[in-house]
Amino acid sequence: MRIEKDCIGEMFVPDNVLYGIHSLRAKHNFPITNEKVDPAIIQSYLQIKKAAAIANEKAGTLDKEKSDLIVSACNQLLFSKDYDAFITPAIQGGAGTSTNMNVNEVVSQLAMRISIKNGREKVEIHPNDDVNQSQSTNDTYPTAGKMAMLKLLPTLTAAVSDLVDALSDKADRYATAIKVGRTQLQDAVPTTFGKSFSAYASMFKRDLQRLKGTQKLLSKVSLGGTAIGTGINATAAYQETVVPVLNKVSHLSLVSASDLVDATQSSDAFTTFSGAMKALAVDLSKFSNDLRLLSSGPQAGLNEIQLPKKAAGSSIMPGKVNPIIPEVVNQVAFEVIGNDVTVTMAAESGQLELNAFEPIMFKSILTSEQHLTRAIDTLVENCVSGIKVNVDDCRSEVEHSSISATVLSPLLGYEKTTSLIKEAVSTKKSVKEIVKAKHLLPDALVDSLFSPEVLTNVSRIKDERSVAGSNLN
Amino acid sequence: MRIEKDCIGEMFVPDNVLYGIHSLRAKHNFPITNEKVDPAIIQSYLQIKKAAAIANEKAGTLDKEKSDLIVSACNQLLFSKDYDAFITPAIQGGAGTSTNMNVNEVVSQLAMRISIKNGREKVEIHPNDDVNQSQSTNDTYPTAGKMAMLKLLPTLTAAVSDLVDALSDKADRYATAIKVGRTQLQDAVPTTFGKSFSAYASMFKRDLQRLKGTQKLLSKVSLGGTAIGTGINATAAYQETVVPVLNKVSHLSLVSASDLVDATQSSDAFTTFSGAMKALAVDLSKFSNDLRLLSSGPQAGLNEIQLPKKAAGSSIMPGKVNPIIPEVVNQVAFEVIGNDVTVTMAAESGQLELNAFEPIMFKSILTSEQHLTRAIDTLVENCVSGIKVNVDDCRSEVEHSSISATVLSPLLGYEKTTSLIKEAVSTKKSVKEIVKAKHLLPDALVDSLFSPEVLTNVSRIKDERSVAGSNLN
Amino acid sequence: MRIEKDCIGEMFVPDNVLYGIHSLRAKHNFPITNEKVDPAIIQSYLQIKKAAAIANEKAGTLDKEKSDLIVSACNQLLFSKDYDAFITPAIQGGAGTSTNMNVNEVVSQLAMRISIKNGREKVEIHPNDDVNQSQSTNDTYPTAGKMAMLKLLPTLTAAVSDLVDALSDKADRYATAIKVGRTQLQDAVPTTFGKSFSAYASMFKRDLQRLKGTQKLLSKVSLGGTAIGTGINATAAYQETVVPVLNKVSHLSLVSASDLVDATQSSDAFTTFSGAMKALAVDLSKFSNDLRLLSSGPQAGLNEIQLPKKAAGSSIMPGKVNPIIPEVVNQVAFEVIGNDVTVTMAAESGQLELNAFEPIMFKSILTSEQHLTRAIDTLVENCVSGIKVNVDDCRSEVEHSSISATVLSPLLGYEKTTSLIKEAVSTKKSVKEIVKAKHLLPDALVDSLFSPEVLTNVSRIKDERSVAGSNLN
Amino acid sequence: MRIEKDCIGEMFVPDNVLYGIHSLRAKHNFPITNEKVDPAIIQSYLQIKKAAAIANEKAGTLDKEKSDLIVSACNQLLFSKDYDAFITPAIQGGAGTSTNMNVNEVVSQLAMRISIKNGREKVEIHPNDDVNQSQSTNDTYPTAGKMAMLKLLPTLTAAVSDLVDALSDKADRYATAIKVGRTQLQDAVPTTFGKSFSAYASMFKRDLQRLKGTQKLLSKVSLGGTAIGTGINATAAYQETVVPVLNKVSHLSLVSASDLVDATQSSDAFTTFSGAMKALAVDLSKFSNDLRLLSSGPQAGLNEIQLPKKAAGSSIMPGKVNPIIPEVVNQVAFEVIGNDVTVTMAAESGQLELNAFEPIMFKSILTSEQHLTRAIDTLVENCVSGIKVNVDDCRSEVEHSSISATVLSPLLGYEKTTSLIKEAVSTKKSVKEIVKAKHLLPDALVDSLFSPEVLTNVSRIKDERSVAGSNLN
Repeated sequence: MRIEKDCIGEMFVPDNVLYGIHSLRAKHNFPITNEKVDPAIIQSYLQIKKAAAIANEKAGTLDKEKSDLIVSACNQLLFSKDYDAFITPAIQGGAGTSTNMNVNEVVSQLAMRISIKNGREKVEIHPNDDVNQSQSTNDTYPTAGKMAMLKLLPTLTAAVSDLVDALSDKADRYATAIKVGRTQLQDAVPTTFGKSFSAYASMFKRDLQRLKGTQKLLSKVSLGGTAIGTGINATAAYQETVVPVLNKVSHLSLVSASDLVDATQSSDAFTTFSGAMKALAVDLSKFSNDLRLLSSGPQAGLNEIQLPKKAAGSSIMPGKVNPIIPEVVNQVAFEVIGNDVTVTMAAESGQLELNAFEPIMFKSILTSEQHLTRAIDTLVENCVSGIKVNVDDCRSEVEHSSISATVLSPLLGYEKTTSLIKEAVSTKKSVKEIVKAKHLLPDALVDSLFSPEVLTNVSRIKDERSVAGSNLN
Repeated sequence: MRIEKDCIGEMFVPDNVLYGIHSLRAKHNFPITNEKVDPAIIQSYLQIKKAAAIANEKAGTLDKEKSDLIVSACNQLLFSKDYDAFITPAIQGGAGTSTNMNVNEVVSQLAMRISIKNGREKVEIHPNDDVNQSQSTNDTYPTAGKMAMLKLLPTLTAAVSDLVDALSDKADRYATAIKVGRTQLQDAVPTTFGKSFSAYASMFKRDLQRLKGTQKLLSKVSLGGTAIGTGINATAAYQETVVPVLNKVSHLSLVSASDLVDATQSSDAFTTFSGAMKALAVDLSKFSNDLRLLSSGPQAGLNEIQLPKKAAGSSIMPGKVNPIIPEVVNQVAFEVIGNDVTVTMAAESGQLELNAFEPIMFKSILTSEQHLTRAIDTLVENCVSGIKVNVDDCRSEVEHSSISATVLSPLLGYEKTTSLIKEAVSTKKSVKEIVKAKHLLPDALVDSLFSPEVLTNVSRIKDERSVAGSNLN
Repeated sequence: MRIEKDCIGEMFVPDNVLYGIHSLRAKHNFPITNEKVDPAIIQSYLQIKKAAAIANEKAGTLDKEKSDLIVSACNQLLFSKDYDAFITPAIQGGAGTSTNMNVNEVVSQLAMRISIKNGREKVEIHPNDDVNQSQSTNDTYPTAGKMAMLKLLPTLTAAVSDLVDALSDKADRYATAIKVGRTQLQDAVPTTFGKSFSAYASMFKRDLQRLKGTQKLLSKVSLGGTAIGTGINATAAYQETVVPVLNKVSHLSLVSASDLVDATQSSDAFTTFSGAMKALAVDLSKFSNDLRLLSSGPQAGLNEIQLPKKAAGSSIMPGKVNPIIPEVVNQVAFEVIGNDVTVTMAAESGQLELNAFEPIMFKSILTSEQHLTRAIDTLVENCVSGIKVNVDDCRSEVEHSSISATVLSPLLGYEKTTSLIKEAVSTKKSVKEIVKAKHLLPDALVDSLFSPEVLTNVSRIKDERSVAGSNLN
Repeated sequence: MRIEKDCIGEMFVPDNVLYGIHSLRAKHNFPITNEKVDPAIIQSYLQIKKAAAIANEKAGTLDKEKSDLIVSACNQLLFSKDYDAFITPAIQGGAGTSTNMNVNEVVSQLAMRISIKNGREKVEIHPNDDVNQSQSTNDTYPTAGKMAMLKLLPTLTAAVSDLVDALSDKADRYATAIKVGRTQLQDAVPTTFGKSFSAYASMFKRDLQRLKGTQKLLSKVSLGGTAIGTGINATAAYQETVVPVLNKVSHLSLVSASDLVDATQSSDAFTTFSGAMKALAVDLSKFSNDLRLLSSGPQAGLNEIQLPKKAAGSSIMPGKVNPIIPEVVNQVAFEVIGNDVTVTMAAESGQLELNAFEPIMFKSILTSEQHLTRAIDTLVENCVSGIKVNVDDCRSEVEHSSISATVLSPLLGYEKTTSLIKEAVSTKKSVKEIVKAKHLLPDALVDSLFSPEVLTNVSRIKDERSVAGSNLN
């Protein structure tokens, strides 16, 4: 055991661990959740410490020896991905200071151990004066948070993109599969599954754009602003260098925010990103609802499509199979929408030069980002790609649907058509049949009008209304 | 025009109006919405002013003459319900001070006019020293808000009660109407519309209890606590008298909160009441969703029930009729759920001895309360009371449903039953038929098992499993 | 009284009114709120009807005589802005059909009256066959909703822009006014009011961009898609013409959506626009919180700034003045955040080819848009533009703040500085004094370090750390 | 490896594991989160399986041998608390079927292994026919969920109770410590820390009642209702026995719901419980905000109280200490409020005979319950119990506060008092001094009025207004 002290007092720290007193205090103070800070934040933080050491060395405020040791320590941790020494909980007070201090302590401790291993005298590396040099929690923590979000973004956009592709494939395959449309859950004029799947694809393409559109905002970082954005205790040389170095280290394209005070205290990048994910969640939930509805049955439901069977659906009802994949997507959507409210409240609660509630914002956002990605992945792989349309049943339903008679309205008028539909329903005849029997329109025109192509407006009857009009008058 | 002044400066006020400078400032400062403070709040406020005047007179701190004039002015306004002089907007800053001052000004002005009308010398009635005597906005405003909520509560509970009754009627009427159950939108074992309508009635009975359960909380008022609950500037005599007097004036059953400081600063009565309405909104929305789903069609949907036709459903599709009443209920539910978030944020933002955001809480809650009442009223009258079940179609659907074979599971086992259902689906035979053909169970037992009474478990086959078990072994 | 009938039955309609049976039914079916459909929607709808009549005439499916009469009727209503005949409530079921039918009825009735006024025989104009020709509620209603949002957008962005300007003015005026920074409500290193006001301006500039960025999405309309986006009953000629004509009529820059089925059923334009307003609301609320905090006091608070006095603050506490303008802005922010949840739920609840819950989305969004505009207007005019900084008190507070000693940390180290601050607090001396007394650094350097320019990092001490370092070693 | 099959197909399952094909499918289908189903749910499920085996045996539908083996297996798992075989993820589709099947598989597998261990021939125990006998996911899963919530409730209420006690202690200790009150963040009439701490205690007592009030609702279970509440495949004997047996097994006081169909499909118990936790979260957040505000400083803030120092507050600013415990409580509150929205949406999305979204409701609610408990525990232990009031500074602030002059208002009138306060502020004299100098009231009366006891209304001046009134006239 070693004794460490801080401005509060002293604590025993096990000798073999890399973390120190500040990390331990966090563990004791915040026993809310077993979940640790997201690895994507730890990785980003290590990259920041590495970049800062290099930038400080270039600025002449950190010895090359110390800088090299810090870089080595960061490299070792980044390479091994062994983050066991990062013990601060995901939900923590203190605006991220515990996480930053945990990283400072681990890196300094490891750097000092490396210095000894090299067979030379131990080099003293101070967590604050050296590892944290020119930095504050208040600029590094939001920077690490944004980096983590940016790193997870490509897998999310790839998932959405896969969903768009899977939907486009279905649209191609079922381009001409006609079906009854439904508005307000009541039978409406026909459409095709081609149009339906395309429409979903179009919607998710916009989600893709919305997500990509947040990249620019997330890339603006306050690194170099230190405590409150004024950049106190950072040299100009460091400030100019650190972000470019960090981009090399992390392979990201970060940009220094033009107003560092604003960048330190404002949270709109987080509300905006969470909002874009919420919009996606809403679209996913609507789509999942539609899938569940269209596949309802098999006997007493709409039964227009079949989802791939992925599990026995009931412990008591034999042979039952449920739409479990859309159901899990719905639930992730509800979670993401709830997380957005959490982010909203946390963002609104920022005060003066800082928002102290970034930890819960980061946890909520990174959870949403990862759950959405995985939910969409399973949706594409285990559901959408295997959807089958019950083509014949759907066509047959269109043929028995009175609402298709809407196509007569421009020729016969809204009221006449209404009475024909009423007659059809009460006599159990089809409207087409009645129109022909009454010679209201030429038979050939009637056949054309009730063809799938005209009903779904893929092809049009040339000058239909004037032609019909002359017939009628 | 008369000139009035306050601690900010002077303003011209039209001679003929009852309100004064404080009211006018509010109108200019808060041009957010044209909506005025809810009449239920104004009425409650006038009752408070009347009760306070009486209590102050009894306590010996207000002349009988002044007290009588104030009471007369309040009575005149309460009787006429002419609230045009109450001009402060529903959304206002200042924690309700504008509303209170508006009432003080109007009452004092009217009281002075009454004094002249009596043919006597004008009696000076001061808005603050007299009408507001022993009071503060901070105790009167939340009291008036709670009173308004309590006054609107009986119409809401009556509406919910009517809904319960309408559902119970339907349950009686369709007690034995069998239908396919559905879990996760997939066919499940049968139930009856009797059970379904009863289940909704049971649910809304709990909502009724929840709403009534909030009454006690809303009845605890901070009146007498004045500025911050310490009761500064109120006499002990007044504090003891004012709530009982107010109960006589308002026909409510208010109680003095035991901790007036707490009652002045805490908002949990509002979050709780809003939460109870949110719970009701969730139930209403779920119920409306079910109604829309069960009435979907008429040809390409479930079409198990018919809702009363209340309007032509489409400007383009003749004869279409939509479930417009459940749809409007859904929307009110979404509004109430949104309002609950508004209330939540406003409550969370209270600071120290007061919550300054009561105006938006009151507006949100009173809106939810009234919209819910009216939405349920139209739901009962224009929808639920006229629902018709398509009894024969529903029975027929049960007969064709393979999932009813669940009833065989205790006798034949889960796996055997699964394979029978598979066989039924692939051969398009009924499970019942197959079981008989294979002589897996005695025919009479099979017939019993597939009877509506056994399928819905209204009656049971005595010792079914042991009997069947002995047959099988 | 005249008798009108629809597919449900007959109703008496007063002879003098322009609306008809469909409008009346809506009034009876949806008695939720007295609020009528927003005038911006009615205006947009009239412009659509006018554009459709012109486009239909061009397409050869509507007589010139009828088209001219429809256009005249629309023009008359648009010019007079007398919308009394539009009686459908803002919260309505039926996906907007009532509103569309109300417009169809009013325009057809007025057009027929105009035809008589011209001294000629009455021309029959049918609400559906003529006024609604080539249209459906499902394409016109969302188009009218988007148009309304677009029309109100410039006043909102102008308000935000004014706020940015007012903040920039304050930033200029108080560029060098030094103050204690605060992170987590604890004293932090100093900043200036120039930096603070600039930071707010930077934040609101992004809100401006976000709002403007929604314009493109809102401009994509489904007009021409009719019932479900397939364009049934619309001619190709009409589809090509109607949006360009509508742009001329409305002076907007609408674009036909490339996928009309998607545009008919998807609601992400609304969630996105509401989300951008929510982000603005969060920023406004945070800013208002800061204003209220910085102006707290006047004696027992931070009292760093003075907000313009806009009203007497208390009915009981003489001379009290409260931050009523920021308070009303907070409340509007809470309302907008609640509305966003309402929009989220409504959008999520869309099913298949349509979202039936657009009425509540439109009401919520248009309310948010207008309340935000007016809240920001009053914030700029009645608060921000009149803010005064208590410059001397703020400077004095910096001088007494121990945390400014942070500037010593790069020279003396984190731990040494910590102990100096502890000593300063316990001895009630200033850190500056102690450092000089102990000759830890050259006096001139100490004076430089504690100068406002260095503390706020406006100017830097050249090579401070190497210089100091050499001094120390 | 063993091969298992279900109605979908076959899978290899490792020979040594207790779970089977259904569990494995869940793992593959729902790779959303690494978080497993909460142990409190697993424990409850095992108790249900045990109780069901006993009840089935009593009902004569399950062999004693099988029943004993199932009970042994459950006991072994319950005793060891080794839940590694329960591999289904916390977020899952399928309405909990995967979790139920996981339990069925593990129990049956273990029971069979136990049968062999006994040295006898292996007894076949079927997961569905035996372990799940008379049960469905749809009655066991919500029952297990409610049991888990009930089990965690006492620790939550104990935490709230501890908080109430800690606050009451503080109230006693600082009963007479006078301080400036604040409404709308502006100085208001004085109060005491005794009253403040008591007020918080009063508020949290109501939260305690609200939480306890949910117990009854959570205790009503649908066990025995099987698939949809009709109780299909359960014997009457089982239905009567199972809940009493379960109460013995679990030491809970569960009650059979009177309407099992309602209890199967309704989710209001969950919205209500989540709502009660949300109300608590709002109160906790408000309280935490107040603590952070009152402890702001130490030099440039209110600095009325000192929170225990729990960690160094800054990596860059030496000696800074932040209110990290209230900050973490705020964040948990935001999380709980977000979770409530998730629960709301999931509850609203239930359809017909079941709510398929219970998994996300359970996860959200159990998370809220545990995080609130731990947050309150750390709040009591690491913050509230160690709060110190800066008594002298607070008293001194009251003495310098002009707003205390409110006490003169009943004697001198609102307007006269206003002008005295203005004079005091402009001349930098105290109001008390001025009143005395002007001989407006007898000196002794003035002294009495400005005494702490009268200012906080702990004692009153007898007949103050009439006395003073006679002095004045």
